[in-house]
Amino acid sequence: MPPDRGGRHPTVTSSALVLAGGSGTRFWPASRRARPKQLLALEGERSLLQATLERLRPLVPPERTWVATTPELAKAVAGQLPELPGGHVLVEPAQRNTGPAIGAALHALPEEARAGVVAVLPADHRVADEERFRAALGAALEAAARHDRVVALGVTPRWAETGFGYLELGAELPGGAGLRAIERFREKPDRATAEAFVASGRHLWNAGIFVFRGTTLLAELARHAPELAAGLERVAREPARRDELYRALPSISIDYAVMEKASGLAALPLDCGWDDLGSWQALFEVLAGDGAGNRSRGRLVTVDARDNLVYAPAGTVALLGVSGLVVVATGDAVLVLPRERAQEVRRVVERLEAEGRSDLL
Amino acid sequence: MPPDRGGRHPTVTSSALVLAGGSGTRFWPASRRARPKQLLALEGERSLLQATLERLRPLVPPERTWVATTPELAKAVAGQLPELPGGHVLVEPAQRNTGPAIGAALHALPEEARAGVVAVLPADHRVADEERFRAALGAALEAAARHDRVVALGVTPRWAETGFGYLELGAELPGGAGLRAIERFREKPDRATAEAFVASGRHLWNAGIFVFRGTTLLAELARHAPELAAGLERVAREPARRDELYRALPSISIDYAVMEKASGLAALPLDCGWDDLGSWQALFEVLAGDGAGNRSRGRLVTVDARDNLVYAPAGTVALLGVSGLVVVATGDAVLVLPRERAQEVRRVVERLEAEGRSDLL
Repeated sequence: MPPDRGGRHPTVTSSALVLAGGSGTRFWPASRRARPKQLLALEGERSLLQATLERLRPLVPPERTWVATTPELAKAVAGQLPELPGGHVLVEPAQRNTGPAIGAALHALPEEARAGVVAVLPADHRVADEERFRAALGAALEAAARHDRVVALGVTPRWAETGFGYLELGAELPGGAGLRAIERFREKPDRATAEAFVASGRHLWNAGIFVFRGTTLLAELARHAPELAAGLERVAREPARRDELYRALPSISIDYAVMEKASGLAALPLDCGWDDLGSWQALFEVLAGDGAGNRSRGRLVTVDARDNLVYAPAGTVALLGVSGLVVVATGDAVLVLPRERAQEVRRVVERLEAEGRSDLL
Repeated sequence: MPPDRGGRHPTVTSSALVLAGGSGTRFWPASRRARPKQLLALEGERSLLQATLERLRPLVPPERTWVATTPELAKAVAGQLPELPGGHVLVEPAQRNTGPAIGAALHALPEEARAGVVAVLPADHRVADEERFRAALGAALEAAARHDRVVALGVTPRWAETGFGYLELGAELPGGAGLRAIERFREKPDRATAEAFVASGRHLWNAGIFVFRGTTLLAELARHAPELAAGLERVAREPARRDELYRALPSISIDYAVMEKASGLAALPLDCGWDDLGSWQALFEVLAGDGAGNRSRGRLVTVDARDNLVYAPAGTVALLGVSGLVVVATGDAVLVLPRERAQEVRRVVERLEAEGRSDLL
């Protein structure tokens, strides 16, 4: 990376690239192939995608925000975001993970945005304290512009999570505001390692939020993933063959393609009630309960029922004498499972796939 | 009652009066005020009402079958029974229990039917062995015609049920076929008494199935419930004031108004897999299970789930890691409860009433 340039960069443009092409099964039956988690209003009236853009808006307005997604979701994404200017929904011809998605999006940005700082953010996370989120993101944008570094926003860990990767921090960097070097990326740890990470005070959850000059990231990509970079150049150069060329790209995460290999990366801590809402149990943990600990979205009637999660955007759910369950009711499907087995919802989806129930997938 | 006349009565008309005016809450959310249990296809493709008439048909055809119900249900009842001639759905202006319902229906029958034998049957019971049911009912019709007795079909008890009344049997009566005098009607017993009843071999469950000459029953009604009989006469005589006069009748069961007071009653045993399907648990007991003991109506997907009852006429229910639950899904409501608490469904309905949720009642 270039050395720090020092000084302020008030004229550098800040843009945002929101990654909204993901799919998943953990919120079935609410989530479907055509309506994945980021499009769901799991908690409030807005979908996670809509909340992501609203959260950004005071810092990065829609005019400088782009959303990358898949052809299957493009229409729904645009429909949820009427404030986005035309052309700001960037369509990845296929799911090829975040490396190709971010690279192709950077090529597609207007030159001014690409030369400025770009914040890349997942579309399906939750943030409890939006002010603190923006303060951290603003500091990251400032640091990325001033020092021309790739800056990760890493989440201050609240427990010894084994389902996330971690950023291992090194020395404090000049410029203040808590900017620290990233020593290395750590894969999902086992329990003991996760506990050691949290105890060390030198590890942050990798939330997939990165801020960088677009041109800098593309240069890093060319250095550390030259084949992918060359493939992305071809995609950008030959729009008529875009689908075919994009499909030929490797499916690889930006972490693996670039971040884990690049030097000079920095991190800022994010302590804003961030949650990736990875399961129905995670949703249970962020919703407010009634007097008996039941948490619900939708109409719930209980008799002698405790500590259940109910998600029923339409219709009414009645619970009698049960506790610790997840009950999800959509128009066409109902799911019931114990809360502690929320990680296993995918097994139901696999069963539906095996039974050819594409109507419910 | 008149003494036995002896001899055969091959020319006596046999008719059926099916009581389909009941309401209840034990099958909520499948059952509603406008769609009570007898209109539900709990087990097969036909509703309990439809099954009741089909079961009768080889013995009593639709031309001699009448169905008594309430104004709220009359249209649905007629819709489910296109084979019934016009005028065979008898509308009770209000729910006044079986005494007024049967009395008014007998007045409304054609004279020939009223002078013949009439079988009165609830519309919401299940019969596993229809041939044995018809053999018993045929014998009861024959005995009622031949001896001009009120003959109850009492169910041979299969367990010490505390939720039913019992018929206590006396001496065997002439005429064979197991016809026995009813010594008395026994109210719902406590557990010990119920066990003694079953052990005695002298008690049958009172299933509310009675066979009698219509004119005989009306004479018994006049003797034992003269006020009700007089009220019913007025209802029959003043059709213009029918609603008002019917509403003024006491709400009283035929058992209490007549059967428990009359002498000369006889019983025949019914051993045909009869079930009153009194709860979701009762439905569980009569449905066939999958390899893990799950019983379902509708589409069910299970992962590691055992011994659950699922009733979902539309839509799909997925269960993961739960056992012993009842899960009912209608378009607008879902109910989840442990099977052993199936008797408490009414508490949910009471909660809905308290919350003014008439849309779900």
